[in-house]
Amino acid sequence: MKSYPKGVTTNSDAGVSGYEEYYPIFAAMEEVGLVLELHGELPSNAQDNICVMNAERAFLPKLTELHRLFPKLRIVLEHATTCDAVEAVKKCGDTVACTITAHHLDITIDDVVGQAHNFCKPVAKYPADRAALLAVVQEGHPRFFLGSDSAPHSKDKKEIACACAGVFTSPYLMPYLADTFEKHGMLHRLGPYTSEFGAAFYGVPKQVETMTLVRQPLVVPEIVKGNIVPFRAGQTLAWSIKSV
Amino acid sequence: MKSYPKGVTTNSDAGVSGYEEYYPIFAAMEEVGLVLELHGELPSNAQDNICVMNAERAFLPKLTELHRLFPKLRIVLEHATTCDAVEAVKKCGDTVACTITAHHLDITIDDVVGQAHNFCKPVAKYPADRAALLAVVQEGHPRFFLGSDSAPHSKDKKEIACACAGVFTSPYLMPYLADTFEKHGMLHRLGPYTSEFGAAFYGVPKQVETMTLVRQPLVVPEIVKGNIVPFRAGQTLAWSIKSV
Repeated sequence: MKSYPKGVTTNSDAGVSGYEEYYPIFAAMEEVGLVLELHGELPSNAQDNICVMNAERAFLPKLTELHRLFPKLRIVLEHATTCDAVEAVKKCGDTVACTITAHHLDITIDDVVGQAHNFCKPVAKYPADRAALLAVVQEGHPRFFLGSDSAPHSKDKKEIACACAGVFTSPYLMPYLADTFEKHGMLHRLGPYTSEFGAAFYGVPKQVETMTLVRQPLVVPEIVKGNIVPFRAGQTLAWSIKSV
Repeated sequence: MKSYPKGVTTNSDAGVSGYEEYYPIFAAMEEVGLVLELHGELPSNAQDNICVMNAERAFLPKLTELHRLFPKLRIVLEHATTCDAVEAVKKCGDTVACTITAHHLDITIDDVVGQAHNFCKPVAKYPADRAALLAVVQEGHPRFFLGSDSAPHSKDKKEIACACAGVFTSPYLMPYLADTFEKHGMLHRLGPYTSEFGAAFYGVPKQVETMTLVRQPLVVPEIVKGNIVPFRAGQTLAWSIKSV
């Protein structure tokens, strides 16, 4: 096993005991070619003014540092939500990628407050953050690709005083995306974003199975699987999956 | 009626047609001594990156401008939530005051996302914003005083897909505040903040009726008035209202 760098400052952010103890694992992952998947947020901490709105931004220096220390380790910053994350990942080398969900391309914090079914972690941020996510996908940057981060919490775990975090997109993931991509004039990016860039980064062979989308309205049901309210429930999407 | 200033730039922020059409009214209010109460937020507008998190900050230049144009008009910026608002009101003259709610002294955006009973407009912001609200109250600034902005939405209007905005604090308003003020070592500011500064600004005589708080635990009920979940439901406050 490769030895890992010494002399790194101890990180004691808000109860995070530091990442150093994981360095031997990261070094081993780098050596054998495993991918490190990160939920990139620091814990909320009033003293340092860290909350759900800036927890991702506060984490980004850690991402940069990990990449510097382990430059061959493939890292995926999962479900990024901010323009800062887009910039940070772009500045890293080719071993660092980033996933973006269908819902973070569509909503902002305005759609989260008071709307439990849009509440997930990381929370959707400012309009300018959403715009940056859309822009990097529109640009066709190969290190930014789909990660659904879909979570099926039942209605009775959502429409309560303290909702579970998670947005359920699985059943209509591709129609949601086609709807959004068309709205932003980037349908030509849908294939690479959903099915090529990620596979290339992970080094998995191109899949044989295909799916065909048709421009046919789809009304998202109010409830699926008995008691789960899906993303954009009741709304009409411009695209459907073609039955085979 | 006093004539009002001319030549002010038209404001077309996100569908706000401009405040100029109200200038004659503001001038009349200034003349007769009426107080202008403002909910100081611009409407959300993705193009200008305005959302619930910065809608108050984006409004503040309007407050400053109104104060400049109508320096004798008493203005209250209601339920302020940000350090920017505190700074802006401080910089205005003695005719501009600011109310702060019990809940905005206690919660941040972390307590709003996924928690419908803490969702109100303006939404609670960053920890540093809450700290600024606490600091100006702790300082005993006479132009910052209590405004409850309490809203009794029933549970079935809260624990749903799209919750009504509002936090219900009325039944335990003083115990909430005593609990918070004690936690921050500023119980000596409770009287002025709740009962003196506001009355002085509005020019109403000191009230004869009094209320006595006792340091006796109070468990906030899960439900009040049949179907309303109050702020901090189920939590124990250090202070109660003494029965007479």
